Amino acid sequence: MKVVGILGSPRKYGSSFKGLMLALKAAEKFGAQTEFYHLYQMDIKPCLGCVSEDVKVCRYPCIIEDDMRKLYDALIEADGFVIATPVYWYSPSGVVKNFIDRLTALENMIHIDGKSWLDGKVAGFIATGNDSGAMMAISQLMVIMNSMGVVIPPWSMAYTNELVDPLEKESFVTDALNVGRNVVLMAKAMKGEAVNRWYDPELYEWYEKELKDWIVELAREEEAKAEKPWKRFTS
Amino acid sequence: MKVVGILGSPRKYGSSFKGLMLALKAAEKFGAQTEFYHLYQMDIKPCLGCVSEDVKVCRYPCIIEDDMRKLYDALIEADGFVIATPVYWYSPSGVVKNFIDRLTALENMIHIDGKSWLDGKVAGFIATGNDSGAMMAISQLMVIMNSMGVVIPPWSMAYTNELVDPLEKESFVTDALNVGRNVVLMAKAMKGEAVNRWYDPELYEWYEKELKDWIVELAREEEAKAEKPWKRFTS
Amino acid sequence: MKVVGILGSPRKYGSSFKGLMLALKAAEKFGAQTEFYHLYQMDIKPCLGCVSEDVKVCRYPCIIEDDMRKLYDALIEADGFVIATPVYWYSPSGVVKNFIDRLTALENMIHIDGKSWLDGKVAGFIATGNDSGAMMAISQLMVIMNSMGVVIPPWSMAYTNELVDPLEKESFVTDALNVGRNVVLMAKAMKGEAVNRWYDPELYEWYEKELKDWIVELAREEEAKAEKPWKRFTS
Amino acid sequence: MKVVGILGSPRKYGSSFKGLMLALKAAEKFGAQTEFYHLYQMDIKPCLGCVSEDVKVCRYPCIIEDDMRKLYDALIEADGFVIATPVYWYSPSGVVKNFIDRLTALENMIHIDGKSWLDGKVAGFIATGNDSGAMMAISQLMVIMNSMGVVIPPWSMAYTNELVDPLEKESFVTDALNVGRNVVLMAKAMKGEAVNRWYDPELYEWYEKELKDWIVELAREEEAKAEKPWKRFTS
Repeated sequence: MKVVGILGSPRKYGSSFKGLMLALKAAEKFGAQTEFYHLYQMDIKPCLGCVSEDVKVCRYPCIIEDDMRKLYDALIEADGFVIATPVYWYSPSGVVKNFIDRLTALENMIHIDGKSWLDGKVAGFIATGNDSGAMMAISQLMVIMNSMGVVIPPWSMAYTNELVDPLEKESFVTDALNVGRNVVLMAKAMKGEAVNRWYDPELYEWYEKELKDWIVELAREEEAKAEKPWKRFTS
Repeated sequence: MKVVGILGSPRKYGSSFKGLMLALKAAEKFGAQTEFYHLYQMDIKPCLGCVSEDVKVCRYPCIIEDDMRKLYDALIEADGFVIATPVYWYSPSGVVKNFIDRLTALENMIHIDGKSWLDGKVAGFIATGNDSGAMMAISQLMVIMNSMGVVIPPWSMAYTNELVDPLEKESFVTDALNVGRNVVLMAKAMKGEAVNRWYDPELYEWYEKELKDWIVELAREEEAKAEKPWKRFTS
Repeated sequence: MKVVGILGSPRKYGSSFKGLMLALKAAEKFGAQTEFYHLYQMDIKPCLGCVSEDVKVCRYPCIIEDDMRKLYDALIEADGFVIATPVYWYSPSGVVKNFIDRLTALENMIHIDGKSWLDGKVAGFIATGNDSGAMMAISQLMVIMNSMGVVIPPWSMAYTNELVDPLEKESFVTDALNVGRNVVLMAKAMKGEAVNRWYDPELYEWYEKELKDWIVELAREEEAKAEKPWKRFTS
Repeated sequence: MKVVGILGSPRKYGSSFKGLMLALKAAEKFGAQTEFYHLYQMDIKPCLGCVSEDVKVCRYPCIIEDDMRKLYDALIEADGFVIATPVYWYSPSGVVKNFIDRLTALENMIHIDGKSWLDGKVAGFIATGNDSGAMMAISQLMVIMNSMGVVIPPWSMAYTNELVDPLEKESFVTDALNVGRNVVLMAKAMKGEAVNRWYDPELYEWYEKELKDWIVELAREEEAKAEKPWKRFTS
């Protein structure tokens, strides 16, 4: 069982990152191995839209040779994945959108060998921002992924829409943990392990006991290491 | 295994109806019993939004005594359901929206007994219109249902966006059949029956052999029976 | 100059109502006469989608004889309007959606006499809820209205997405006042009165001085008069 | 009067390009000077989201020194603009999304000098694809722009959702011309020139007489010059 976490925020210590780390920890707790990718530290060029020229030319691997190839291979091997994005103008960041546009090379395999290469994989979504728009961003991600052949387990989303440290919000933390849990449980369900309940509020206790100190410290360390190009301009 | 079909179009012979009938037939082929409800022939009043007054007061059964109670009971017993809507202004019809608003009484049971009463059910969507907007309508239905605890199987959608008889479009017919198939296969998967492939293009052959004459005739009969209040105004 | 306010909430004392009243007061301040309609107290039946049978049959007045006729006439005379809706499942309430579906009879006049009867009118939007989804609801209303021929002035929206009395939120109050202001200023602009700035933060001071007591008292009075069918079920 | 055209497609000869050129020609006919920018041929890096660190640091010019500066300056001088995007997965291309995310530096001037630097500018939208999703893409662009202070004139959109040369579709051509026309007429309206009708179907005749040969030839020339990296892979 493998779950891939994809971060679409410039900051490897902000709200999306924290939510994603919680989801991946929950995925591990329920039996998955996890991998983490930070899109802003990768070279992922924009889609060239070849499919509009010739439906057969868009295929794995995409003709563009860049870091997307690592993501293709990670996703091909994965049972599920979690996309975490900041909410930029009520939608995923441009970096996330470029990643999605490039996924066409996996989905379009349906025209090459009869099956989307994302067929039957399971997805969860995390979207964080300090204003409205999270649900608009998630609805977009969800319908796109479903159109690529992906399963959406119940409550496959965690989000913020206020200016607040999301680790202080019990609902966000519990939702994020359930995103990771449900991606794994759904992947298992498709292999024959029944699920009784699709939302486990008690994961929050686990967070308070075993994860909170860890995630706070992790975010602090990552922030300390981060370049902050805007620093010199701070008011 | 039970699948409920819900029609949100005024016409029990139009594109949404045809798509929904195909989905239900496919659901039956894969082992489900099906039921059909036509919202325009039911009395479903608008939601009163009680939940915004007191989160505990919104619960099954809703305080409004109308035909929604039949739908609550049908959905409680169902493993899955398919919502078929015309695309009115890029979104589901007002009648479908009233139905959705009223579903809060099932979802909100999470605050009463710890679990949404739609938890783990499986949904598919059909949206038909002769202009753009189908995907916008479907994205809305999908994210709402997922937030209520519903599973979305791969390619859980069929739609039209052109002025055409949808029965003449192979892609629509095949998509609609796969909606019904996937709702059932996903419900079975959660009980331990693995699925190899989430889109079966060969269902179209079955349609041509066994369903086409039937659905054409059914729509014709229903149209003949239908009241057409606009008839006297026709240009 | 006439501006019509349309309330799509069951409650004539809640957040949407408060926002709408502020917008209408601002519209009056800038020179408009205003009218108020409460959809939940009107009989507005669902659209029958005649246009999909025959594009020429959908026209003013709609074949359905109900209270929508009052709204058609109010809108035909208006220079602008403000739609206020609660956010039910990330979108306008079903009652608002039925109202919108029925507006087709004005828009579709483009096929009868060459011009949408909403052409060049100006719209603003208010959407209130205690969770995410406001922007998704507003984006839907905005693109629909624009497709009907309506002008959208800058920042034509006010919303909440937290459980809070919106009158306590300076940003919401100021936004709602600017919605009313901008609907009027845009209608005037189209008649030749230039506008220098499309957002006036100082309207908040006017609110504090002249409107706050009034709106608080108005909502209180309306709440006292309101039927509350859920009361006997309160936890 | 100045109108800026922004192309978010990789192809400077495809449907988005054709629609945008028509819109700009119509803008010229009604008195504007126009400029054209092709995002895929510019270096526009992703937004760093500085605003979430410190609301005051995000301002013109963005700390990232790249070709976005040309676009900032073009937009600051413009009265209006038209964004043309291919529909990639029901939304604007990633390249367009990066452009939008970076516009925050103009919008956020409201926190620096009290006014968004897009305040009162007028926008139109073109979205082309061969499947559903155009309206979802446009609704996203429209609500974002309006939130930045932009005016949306009536019918400010042209789109395709079928696999067809858009120059053969009278409705698309007429819509695209009206997008350009209405951006200019709205900018003029705000300076005091009244508008009688917001959709002019007769622009299509002008197209047939004066524009059709020109745009067909222009697209052909541009296609001949274009690099086509996918060519060697064509089936």
